Amino acid sequence: MSTTSTTQMASEIAEQPDAARRTLDHLLPERDRLRDLFADRRRVLLVARGSSDNAAIYGRYLLEVTSGIPAGLAAPSVATHYRARLDLTDTLVVSVSQSGSTAEIVETQEWARSCGAATVSVSNVAGSPLAAAADLALTTQAGPEVAVPATKTYLAQMLALAVVADALGPSSSLADDLARVPAAVEGLLGQDVDAAATALSEVDRVVVSGRGFLLGTALETALKMEETCLRPVRGYSYADLRHGPISVVGEGVLAVLVAAAHGPLAEPMVELADDLHRRGARVLGLGGTPEFADRCDVHLAGPDLPETVEPVASIVPAQMMIERLALRLGLDPDNPRGLNKVTQTDITH
Amino acid sequence: MSTTSTTQMASEIAEQPDAARRTLDHLLPERDRLRDLFADRRRVLLVARGSSDNAAIYGRYLLEVTSGIPAGLAAPSVATHYRARLDLTDTLVVSVSQSGSTAEIVETQEWARSCGAATVSVSNVAGSPLAAAADLALTTQAGPEVAVPATKTYLAQMLALAVVADALGPSSSLADDLARVPAAVEGLLGQDVDAAATALSEVDRVVVSGRGFLLGTALETALKMEETCLRPVRGYSYADLRHGPISVVGEGVLAVLVAAAHGPLAEPMVELADDLHRRGARVLGLGGTPEFADRCDVHLAGPDLPETVEPVASIVPAQMMIERLALRLGLDPDNPRGLNKVTQTDITH
Repeated sequence: MSTTSTTQMASEIAEQPDAARRTLDHLLPERDRLRDLFADRRRVLLVARGSSDNAAIYGRYLLEVTSGIPAGLAAPSVATHYRARLDLTDTLVVSVSQSGSTAEIVETQEWARSCGAATVSVSNVAGSPLAAAADLALTTQAGPEVAVPATKTYLAQMLALAVVADALGPSSSLADDLARVPAAVEGLLGQDVDAAATALSEVDRVVVSGRGFLLGTALETALKMEETCLRPVRGYSYADLRHGPISVVGEGVLAVLVAAAHGPLAEPMVELADDLHRRGARVLGLGGTPEFADRCDVHLAGPDLPETVEPVASIVPAQMMIERLALRLGLDPDNPRGLNKVTQTDITH
Repeated sequence: MSTTSTTQMASEIAEQPDAARRTLDHLLPERDRLRDLFADRRRVLLVARGSSDNAAIYGRYLLEVTSGIPAGLAAPSVATHYRARLDLTDTLVVSVSQSGSTAEIVETQEWARSCGAATVSVSNVAGSPLAAAADLALTTQAGPEVAVPATKTYLAQMLALAVVADALGPSSSLADDLARVPAAVEGLLGQDVDAAATALSEVDRVVVSGRGFLLGTALETALKMEETCLRPVRGYSYADLRHGPISVVGEGVLAVLVAAAHGPLAEPMVELADDLHRRGARVLGLGGTPEFADRCDVHLAGPDLPETVEPVASIVPAQMMIERLALRLGLDPDNPRGLNKVTQTDITH
């Protein structure tokens, strides 16, 4: 593969403004049905694995912080292997799977319904097993995704979860901000990611960290780099990194920090960059405040969006730099070894 | 430091049977007060960081699978930075911190109470800020812990959470099994961990995986090895590892698998060991079925306990092998650089 030809992954990254517009147009009208389904329920339980799990982490912050609804992530084996009997009559379960065919997620949704939950599916495939079994199926409109690393389907999942949060929250405050996302994504696509890919290619060890709304973006950046570039990359929450593992950060480590441009967590990322520098690490920053950008050895611009919808767009520069890094390492980003498009947890399913 | 002298960490590991007996004697009588406090509440939210977070992950499985109570882990920044207003009047919040002085955890407990939650603290320090502010303070009886890596306080935290699960569940089925834990821990202390420490010292990359009840043990093994031996070690749930990152496992990787001896997840670990071998990794097994033990390149015996209380004891061989590895690497396991006993997330607190 030549570095001048366009990969499928690059094409799918570039399709994201359109994928975002189509998904919002398709899903925003579902808000009334979402509200009806939630009715007098009190909490949301998210069910997902892999990239979808990272989208769900964003959804959890959005539901709790913006919509004021207690939310959490399911432990699927509680359903699939231990077959626990929980009273979920106060719960809306939102199951997220790109293909809608991951057996573990389909099974967990079925279990939740048998425990009394109302169920919403988020998948990119209309009529998928997950969608067919849900009380309400939200189908993201990313279109077919051919490259193994999920890009536009991941972005569309975040939008679907934002629509859920907007529907269930006390006021429809998110919709206006969501409308700004497609243009913000468009504005990020022309960015030069060469210096970032070079910095990544020059080190043996990469850690990624983010916090709050952007924690999911950090974990997705780590997972995507690992899957696409076949190198171990560790994603940490800001707090977990600080709470111990920062002691193994030193010379030869590149720390990728995904930072918020606004909000209460913007400032602490500046201190974290300084701390990592003192320990001998290089810092590759994504987004954040101007002060944060100044502190970074390499910096990629993030979107200028409110913190609540920023994560939907801030994954885009990360995707671009990962695609570039894979090519630089002589890999085919469209088809890393050992991955299939429909992922299953257990071989025997 | 000579490898023949006894480290503080080794002494504290060896104190665990007594710490377990004292903690159970002290906390089991609190079950009536726990039941009264829970009253007609419906769910449990766990608040923790670091090692305490790994204990909380065990607590979550126990509460859901054994007690049938929906449980989840809080995202502390939702409280401390975003100051979300959630209705937690149906929730019992259990906050776990060895010192009871971690500001983030104390703050989150205070926030939960202001949202209507009933609060239970689990700390090893009577009268700690966390204990003083809780509706009910559970004080683990591990005694003073001097070595920086938490060992006996971690084990005691798991016991405290098991007492909570036993109190809130429909029948007191756990108490008899918990009574077997101290002797089971005692039986593991004489085990020879040299071959395991040697295997770990010979590789550059270590991943740790476990599942279900033992997921917390796997994550704690990874975190403890990282903090004590100052090497990056990655902990994964079985499902997350299978769902993508397994593609970067190959030659030169040592996979530490923490496996259940009984229960529905015992069997899949055999398949995972085979898969990792096919990819070129060596496998160090802890616990599991006899068939699993046969598949491992190096194996440490786990406790012979029901799956529900097995994790309380299965961390012990991992602690022993980590202490030995640190000494072999020329490190002082009692005081790895860069860590303080009271951990704080934000510098400015």
